[in-house]
Amino acid sequence: MKKTIIINGIFVTVDEVAPLIRGCMVIEQDRIIYIGEQAPEPLEAYDEVINGHNRLYMPGLVNTHCHAAMSLLRGYGDDLALQIWLEEKMWPMEAKFSAKDVRWGTQLSILEMIKGGTTTFVDMYDHMDEVAQAVEQSGMRGCLTRGVIGLCPPEVQDAKLKEATAFARNWNGKADGRITTMMSPHAPYTCPPDYIERIVQAAHDLDLPIHTHMSETLREVLANEQQYGLRPVEHLEKLGVFTRPTLVAHGVHLTNEEISILAKYSVHVSHNPGSNLKLASGIARVQELQHAGVKVSLGTDSSASNNNLDMFEEMRLAALIHKGVSGDPLAVPAKEALRMATLTGAESLWLPDVGQLKAGMKADFIALDLDQPHLLPKTDFISHIVYSASAKDVIDVCVDGNWIVRGGACLTLDEERIKREFELCFEGLLG
Amino acid sequence: MKKTIIINGIFVTVDEVAPLIRGCMVIEQDRIIYIGEQAPEPLEAYDEVINGHNRLYMPGLVNTHCHAAMSLLRGYGDDLALQIWLEEKMWPMEAKFSAKDVRWGTQLSILEMIKGGTTTFVDMYDHMDEVAQAVEQSGMRGCLTRGVIGLCPPEVQDAKLKEATAFARNWNGKADGRITTMMSPHAPYTCPPDYIERIVQAAHDLDLPIHTHMSETLREVLANEQQYGLRPVEHLEKLGVFTRPTLVAHGVHLTNEEISILAKYSVHVSHNPGSNLKLASGIARVQELQHAGVKVSLGTDSSASNNNLDMFEEMRLAALIHKGVSGDPLAVPAKEALRMATLTGAESLWLPDVGQLKAGMKADFIALDLDQPHLLPKTDFISHIVYSASAKDVIDVCVDGNWIVRGGACLTLDEERIKREFELCFEGLLG
Repeated sequence: MKKTIIINGIFVTVDEVAPLIRGCMVIEQDRIIYIGEQAPEPLEAYDEVINGHNRLYMPGLVNTHCHAAMSLLRGYGDDLALQIWLEEKMWPMEAKFSAKDVRWGTQLSILEMIKGGTTTFVDMYDHMDEVAQAVEQSGMRGCLTRGVIGLCPPEVQDAKLKEATAFARNWNGKADGRITTMMSPHAPYTCPPDYIERIVQAAHDLDLPIHTHMSETLREVLANEQQYGLRPVEHLEKLGVFTRPTLVAHGVHLTNEEISILAKYSVHVSHNPGSNLKLASGIARVQELQHAGVKVSLGTDSSASNNNLDMFEEMRLAALIHKGVSGDPLAVPAKEALRMATLTGAESLWLPDVGQLKAGMKADFIALDLDQPHLLPKTDFISHIVYSASAKDVIDVCVDGNWIVRGGACLTLDEERIKREFELCFEGLLG
Repeated sequence: MKKTIIINGIFVTVDEVAPLIRGCMVIEQDRIIYIGEQAPEPLEAYDEVINGHNRLYMPGLVNTHCHAAMSLLRGYGDDLALQIWLEEKMWPMEAKFSAKDVRWGTQLSILEMIKGGTTTFVDMYDHMDEVAQAVEQSGMRGCLTRGVIGLCPPEVQDAKLKEATAFARNWNGKADGRITTMMSPHAPYTCPPDYIERIVQAAHDLDLPIHTHMSETLREVLANEQQYGLRPVEHLEKLGVFTRPTLVAHGVHLTNEEISILAKYSVHVSHNPGSNLKLASGIARVQELQHAGVKVSLGTDSSASNNNLDMFEEMRLAALIHKGVSGDPLAVPAKEALRMATLTGAESLWLPDVGQLKAGMKADFIALDLDQPHLLPKTDFISHIVYSASAKDVIDVCVDGNWIVRGGACLTLDEERIKREFELCFEGLLG
């Protein structure tokens, strides 16, 4: 069993008891087995000794809402309202996506994510076998789900549900447990109620969680009320969605009553500040959700509405916008934004041993290069992570005890080939 | 006269007529003399031929409000309200700043700025000879001003004004014209009215513009009303400030009447979205200001309230927050955010030949490394600059026809020494 020790490191742990440790961390197999000021054994006892001087170590970032393949649509149809952007730009192009497009679009995004310090992500898309294979190869962690849109004839609905179920069954727990799966009605406004109920039943049968878009725009909330006489939260409650562990993306337009319902069922919310701002969807009530006890994590959404997958930016946006909008400089402090992007993210995906640097946790961690002007002086490192760092400060990435990025280079994927294939796919979609 | 040509480049010009050019740009001395699809002469005619393949060229970024030396206070006292942060954290530490602290704090910020694509900045601070020397050495452009706080005995007021006047006179037009100067009462709430009038008179005598903080927080606006019976804009109008060309920083809390007054006098506003959000000061009425014809540029403010000097982030924040808050997905489109950070920034500093890639303009430009996952596909490059890029994508920087960053390394400053001296200064301030 290989044992690695990092010495002379600064560790931001996201642990309340010891939030910052200067010293050593020991990794054995897939786990952190020690973190503390002194090396627990003489350095000769280790297979690898890493000098962590000028490195800032922290848990890998957890992106709880993404559609990775949509990197192919980055910059395609910017500065439009969500519904127009979806209906006139995204959906027509996405309709052309082949399995191959999804393969290379997803691989490009995974490359961007892991080089930028994201070690776990949620993906909701189509051609999910391609996504799962890419995750397996990359070495990162993925919580994956075939998102189904039910605005189609019954036989197409049946086929999609069958595909989603097969995917979820086949891939759950694969890649040494790095892949988990969920069931996903795309959104209340894209799935008829009876179809949502069938998806919930499938999730029950497989004992899997549910992921869905919910209450992203005011227009969608009003349409839900008009069509079903209920706002989205009560609508989904009535359809039994929340009887399963559930992660909803966005949750921008919520009443106090809706927040209470989400809290009652322990529904998790993926807050996507960059995407919500860019599409002018609005500003989620993050502080009220947190105050009610709802777990709020962070997601990038796709790079078509962001337009990158830099989780440092999502932390920063979460820490900044709620201050500016509420007028409260204490809103979402740096420490809380960091927690949302790490430990709370992992908890939101029901991963009990990810998201902290602590003995017993999975060895999912990243290192930032501290020897840079914008990360000096060496003072409040949590502040530096949230308010000053970016994806490009990440230099080393370890997931499940394996290095997947070292010295800024990805060790598991062929970056040059991915970029080349991705560009060919993009040209194909345009042609 | 040395002539350089860049071939095979993609140029985002910030010129309405030809916003994107694929081809060549020629630089002679300090000027761009040609930009177009074809090389104007055979390549043998040039002293240097640069292959711009996989580079995205754009004008250098213009940061219209900064206090560079405050990098020493990055991460010191985060998540506090502006007045408490200023009075209890910033001012006591700043009172300890020596000329040496300003020297190294400023050099660290200049290093961060130029490596991140900022080619011109405004600095308002103390010990300004140190700042001017650093700007001169760095090769970048600076519009510099000794900010004076008038809450002190008359003889101290006199000494400060004398110092500010001497600095402004001595350094205006220096460093081959890269340095210009302004006169700066720090803010209406830190300068008695008669002192502001004396500073305005000095600006008249020297024929220089005025820079000041204004209407950053609601508290300051209400205090102004209480103390002087006028809101800050009318107060400064009454004191004759706007009879000089004026650049105000922040301008967050403005009535329609105040916006009209600013437009009437062609007062320029430096919008600092990152700082305003972080200090919970509020959200400036950028669209209303622009609609009234006010020039709105972008500034980082200091890295104590930002906490970095990445102008790409300020562009992105400007493009995102006004969409999210207004609910209008067309608010501050990418093209406009880019213009604010380049051409409008230069115009706001009365620099008529900076901020565009166009024949006759100063050769102040930067190159981004396009060969990266988050900048693919090669589609809407303006969108990529605003919504996806960051300071760390900058690879080459040219100011006034001279390369100051090449391949990501600064050619004009000693990075290792600056970081070392900066850390010593920080330790000294703590001790």
